[in-house]
Amino acid sequence: MSLDFSTKIFKTEKIFLANTEEYIVRGGRHLFPLLSKAFEGVRQIGVIGWSSQGRAQAQNLRDSLAGTGIQVKVGLRENSASISSAENFGFTRDNGTLGEMYEVISESDISILLISDAAQAENKERIFEAMRPGSTLGLSHGFLLGHLKNLGECFPNNINAIAVCPKGMGPSVRRLYEQGKEINGAGINSSFAIYQDITGKATDYALGWAIAIGSPAIFHTTLESEYKSDIFGERGILLGAIHGIVESLYRWFMSHGSSREEAYIYSVESITGPITKMISQQGILAVYESFDKTDKETFKKAYLAAYDPALEILQEIYDEVASGNEIRSAIAASHRHKSYPLGKIDGTPMWQTGIHVRANRKSDNIPIHPVTAGIYIATMMAQINLLKEKGHSYSEIANESIIEAVDSLNPYMHHRGIAFMVDNCSITARLGARKWAPRFDYILSQQTFNALDSHFIYDEPLFQQFLTNEIHQVLAICSQLRPPIDISLHQIDIG
Amino acid sequence: MSLDFSTKIFKTEKIFLANTEEYIVRGGRHLFPLLSKAFEGVRQIGVIGWSSQGRAQAQNLRDSLAGTGIQVKVGLRENSASISSAENFGFTRDNGTLGEMYEVISESDISILLISDAAQAENKERIFEAMRPGSTLGLSHGFLLGHLKNLGECFPNNINAIAVCPKGMGPSVRRLYEQGKEINGAGINSSFAIYQDITGKATDYALGWAIAIGSPAIFHTTLESEYKSDIFGERGILLGAIHGIVESLYRWFMSHGSSREEAYIYSVESITGPITKMISQQGILAVYESFDKTDKETFKKAYLAAYDPALEILQEIYDEVASGNEIRSAIAASHRHKSYPLGKIDGTPMWQTGIHVRANRKSDNIPIHPVTAGIYIATMMAQINLLKEKGHSYSEIANESIIEAVDSLNPYMHHRGIAFMVDNCSITARLGARKWAPRFDYILSQQTFNALDSHFIYDEPLFQQFLTNEIHQVLAICSQLRPPIDISLHQIDIG
Repeated sequence: MSLDFSTKIFKTEKIFLANTEEYIVRGGRHLFPLLSKAFEGVRQIGVIGWSSQGRAQAQNLRDSLAGTGIQVKVGLRENSASISSAENFGFTRDNGTLGEMYEVISESDISILLISDAAQAENKERIFEAMRPGSTLGLSHGFLLGHLKNLGECFPNNINAIAVCPKGMGPSVRRLYEQGKEINGAGINSSFAIYQDITGKATDYALGWAIAIGSPAIFHTTLESEYKSDIFGERGILLGAIHGIVESLYRWFMSHGSSREEAYIYSVESITGPITKMISQQGILAVYESFDKTDKETFKKAYLAAYDPALEILQEIYDEVASGNEIRSAIAASHRHKSYPLGKIDGTPMWQTGIHVRANRKSDNIPIHPVTAGIYIATMMAQINLLKEKGHSYSEIANESIIEAVDSLNPYMHHRGIAFMVDNCSITARLGARKWAPRFDYILSQQTFNALDSHFIYDEPLFQQFLTNEIHQVLAICSQLRPPIDISLHQIDIG
Repeated sequence: MSLDFSTKIFKTEKIFLANTEEYIVRGGRHLFPLLSKAFEGVRQIGVIGWSSQGRAQAQNLRDSLAGTGIQVKVGLRENSASISSAENFGFTRDNGTLGEMYEVISESDISILLISDAAQAENKERIFEAMRPGSTLGLSHGFLLGHLKNLGECFPNNINAIAVCPKGMGPSVRRLYEQGKEINGAGINSSFAIYQDITGKATDYALGWAIAIGSPAIFHTTLESEYKSDIFGERGILLGAIHGIVESLYRWFMSHGSSREEAYIYSVESITGPITKMISQQGILAVYESFDKTDKETFKKAYLAAYDPALEILQEIYDEVASGNEIRSAIAASHRHKSYPLGKIDGTPMWQTGIHVRANRKSDNIPIHPVTAGIYIATMMAQINLLKEKGHSYSEIANESIIEAVDSLNPYMHHRGIAFMVDNCSITARLGARKWAPRFDYILSQQTFNALDSHFIYDEPLFQQFLTNEIHQVLAICSQLRPPIDISLHQIDIG
């Protein structure tokens, strides 16, 4: 995969991530005057759907394009329950910035599709039919490409197909953009991909879009690499793995004499609080280095006992995503859920305990338990190494395995609990977490805790590989590209 | 699906299972004289592979066909580790009944393929090439058809493709056949399917094969229906569901004050011992009716709290099997396992507890816990109702959901524990159990136990539907078709 690209309007910058080079574009409000040129020929951008990404991106685009003459119009289903919400945010039928989705698609030069994965799959024929030849389809996620591949189908060959994928939740995309009015460069980073460029303008459209929604750094990827790493990542460390890890750890601590509250603090609180904060601010190795000699040894044992089992499940997930199975499953689930809606997962005693623990939390007193840290970081490292082996770029690996966890999802989980967070993600993500969390839980119980509690064999080279992994350098460089404010503070009003 | 078929050699019999009619053939040693005619034109039957089914079927076929002039020859890979075992059982190169697998296939008129699913998938081109035009491919499982469908491929159009699928483990197929020398009719029932019949002889070959391996009753199905119900069933109540149910029950009993030993007895022992025996001998309703008034109420609550969550996972499994996802997953796993072999799952404290419990077992003293019975039977009923909705025949439903559990797998689990049994199944079954057990565990913990421990809503019609379900009549009739000896006694020397 070549990570080079060319733009006549924005400045590209070469960065070195470990021994590989990538090209990025830096965003910022000082570039807004270039947006008219980037969007040359575009009179209207349609934002289809009022999902959390939809409402964030529509507002950011409208604000950034004010005065350019380019209209941002929201498209919703006839009788959509979101119409009144969109009107409250100033997208109204009266002022011509709200319309029926297929009409908006047919009027727009760029149609940004932010409806759910299942809705994209179900309505793709009508969407493609509505698009004018030469217009541009914008995605924030490659699911639809995966679905088309499963069916042996393609995007229409007379349109551009591009993606801009913010590496954070919709509400963060809006809040940091607003913050960016005072601190230039605050915003959520994005990756972008050009799948089909029939007009020669696709790259500038994508970069313009990413800059207009406020991304301070914009990485290049392919649409296929994006959807694989994205669907994989949420099944892995971002949602599925972290959930399974803490469920199994909670039981393990209790079986070793902890109370419910202690077990919750040693597992969930330890990860979503101090471990997350330390990785975000100082990198992964800092967690290990923060321990004394005894705890370093405990961390090492936990790391070595967890790495291979976690990798086994991660390999299976990657294969399931790459083969199209996970996408087929999500589509099948969307049909079942018409008659049987998904149940909640945060009603168990563990998550009820979490409510009490959070209510009595003293943030400075949450310990980092070395077993918890060892297992969590081993799983994160297994994901990083697997994505590298599968050919993903380091910017993508760092975002999908570390940055999105410690700067976006984990801080939110710290606020409301992991199970609640899972229940409030996209359906594709919820399904994935439900499917894979129990697998991580079982394999850790069957292999990792079993090894910790009895026979244990040191694999020194595996631990050396952790200490000297290139990802530590990569993360240090990527950290410099992150927005200059603490994202996590901006999560706590969501949900 | 029409369940009628025609044979000029054996007698068909119409049976009524609830309101549907099916045609079966009854086997028995008195029919062995008809085998020459059934296998008219066949000089050699090749049995490919020395799996547990391979070794059982090769021996039974050889014994049943003695004196007919039809040779049974075992085919193994060059340098196969099973060669010496086959030779110990009298299949030797010297006497011409053991050879290299592709040579045996090319010599044989019927080649019965009893190598692993992954090996069938990997070697299908060479196998198909080796088969002579007009010869017959025999399967004991439809996995290969599912794999071909995923690839958009077919069986060669110049061969017959048939299946005979014994409804029990290989060792039972052999042991009951031997028992049948004294008690005519002892043996493992089979289903059979004719997928491709180019010579007009396929049905008689299949019936002859089923009779020769000792099946007392032979049901008709399609190869597609067989592999769907088989792969589904082992992920459901036969392996995956029972494993997940007892893991979650074990923890639930402990969280309600039971010791480890008590929790094990109330969960695993209760199901694999008395519940299994009672269903086998008296049917499903007998379990409910054995309770006093209080326990009947507890059973009912557990049943109602478990039915919908279990059905949710079963529906997902069925969709995953029908879409080909489970088969694709198994193939992908077989590639990964070349470098990372599957770990064992029975090392956790729960299964270690099982060793002590079994050592001190007093079989007559194992209680039937009503919560355990309610959850187990709710899952079994959900599976039955789902298979019916998907169009499977009642004979197939009863076999894949009840009879194979209570007469074959559960008694063996009673002997060695459920996790050990899972670890000793076919790879496809092991993978399925690993994937789905944790899902049953989590959904029961998140929904069923939560409902039992707090808010609970009675769904009276759902319980009435259990009490009046047609399956109770079906099972009573199918029970009459089972062999007249206690199969479970013949499981205990395996593994």
